[in-house]
Amino acid sequence: MEPIGKKRWAIVEGYIPPTSTGPHPQMTSHETVCVLNVWPCDARVEITVFYTDRGLVGPYRLVVPAERTMHVRFNDLTDPAPIPTDTDFASLIESDVPIVVQHTRLDSRQAENALLSTIMFAGNE
Amino acid sequence: MEPIGKKRWAIVEGYIPPTSTGPHPQMTSHETVCVLNVWPCDARVEITVFYTDRGLVGPYRLVVPAERTMHVRFNDLTDPAPIPTDTDFASLIESDVPIVVQHTRLDSRQAENALLSTIMFAGNE
Amino acid sequence: MEPIGKKRWAIVEGYIPPTSTGPHPQMTSHETVCVLNVWPCDARVEITVFYTDRGLVGPYRLVVPAERTMHVRFNDLTDPAPIPTDTDFASLIESDVPIVVQHTRLDSRQAENALLSTIMFAGNE
Amino acid sequence: MEPIGKKRWAIVEGYIPPTSTGPHPQMTSHETVCVLNVWPCDARVEITVFYTDRGLVGPYRLVVPAERTMHVRFNDLTDPAPIPTDTDFASLIESDVPIVVQHTRLDSRQAENALLSTIMFAGNE
Repeated sequence: MEPIGKKRWAIVEGYIPPTSTGPHPQMTSHETVCVLNVWPCDARVEITVFYTDRGLVGPYRLVVPAERTMHVRFNDLTDPAPIPTDTDFASLIESDVPIVVQHTRLDSRQAENALLSTIMFAGNE
Repeated sequence: MEPIGKKRWAIVEGYIPPTSTGPHPQMTSHETVCVLNVWPCDARVEITVFYTDRGLVGPYRLVVPAERTMHVRFNDLTDPAPIPTDTDFASLIESDVPIVVQHTRLDSRQAENALLSTIMFAGNE
Repeated sequence: MEPIGKKRWAIVEGYIPPTSTGPHPQMTSHETVCVLNVWPCDARVEITVFYTDRGLVGPYRLVVPAERTMHVRFNDLTDPAPIPTDTDFASLIESDVPIVVQHTRLDSRQAENALLSTIMFAGNE
Repeated sequence: MEPIGKKRWAIVEGYIPPTSTGPHPQMTSHETVCVLNVWPCDARVEITVFYTDRGLVGPYRLVVPAERTMHVRFNDLTDPAPIPTDTDFASLIESDVPIVVQHTRLDSRQAENALLSTIMFAGNE
């Protein structure tokens, strides 16, 4: 199968809400990056996190297997450092093969949950 | 009319919620791919579905008539296999003529429904 | 000011909900196309509407003044024909100068309103 | 780090809701532009605001520090003039180095909040 996607992506609007309502784990507030790798080889992915008032942190490393999709919660990233809740951040996603990236947030701070999803900015390469 | 769109599209963040609230069928939780074909000939469309922990499934075949739009619920795709609910998936949409693709989800698990819609990643061809 | 945008845009996922809740007119269910024209001359815009089971209708004609934004409700388009509620449609937006187009829906069928907004597919020209 | 992004962006669908519900300041209705600057130098950003029935206002000037993200509420922009609530507007964002821009709104007029976020239109330069 022909590759589809880009090697560099940016998610500008990152934020993990500090609280949740509703049943766990489906309704826990979270911030997810979804990756699609249609390529017949694994994709080695590195995520760098940017903050408003301190230096960048990363890379966080992932492997997205060949011909698979992977949905990663930023809540679960811990190495080199967990991402604080209630804090604005942005992220840069870089891969050694073309991938497609999408971003979802479930904000369940209030009983009525808001789900947002956007396709991210794809770099030129 | 001049064509508009691309021949390859990706929807990374696929998920059919397992439950619904509200009147049927409008308020049934669903995951929809919307296709626009402004071309004066039919578009032959193939959808391939990717999972996190098993091999890809497809193609699912559709025909989008000339100068028409078609809104397809992933819930209704059954050949070669239905798409399980409560499971992360991604999809690749390929057409023999340029089309425009958009993605909508109505998540009515809770009484207050969340509707999301995003324009999808368009490949280079 | 340098122009920004494209001359052709597509909105694939069009739908005017049949009912509303909440105070009018802000909370009336609607489907809006937002246009930005940064150019020092008026933009002459034509909208063509596509359906799932009948032929296309249009063009609907608009003028977006120089250096202005215009937010048009599909509910208000009547010439050559009003757009039916509770019906799937798609639209193609064509302008004689580059414009930027965005799409919003307020779905107030239920008391808890869902607002969605997406940036639309921009053609090559 | 290699730059990512564009020098010109447009947000077409701007609107600051006039009222709010829920705890302040997190749940105050707002309209936010999020900027990511991965470049090792500061980005000098100018925002121009367009209205439906009067001339453009601007530029509003911001500096986004090197390797930082900045989340700016349109509610907080005051120089050369505050942006009125309950009024449609659009904005053009121009930077001297490539940046990535994303747009969020929290509409908390009703108790059930709607959060929307979209990636914005990126100009050619």
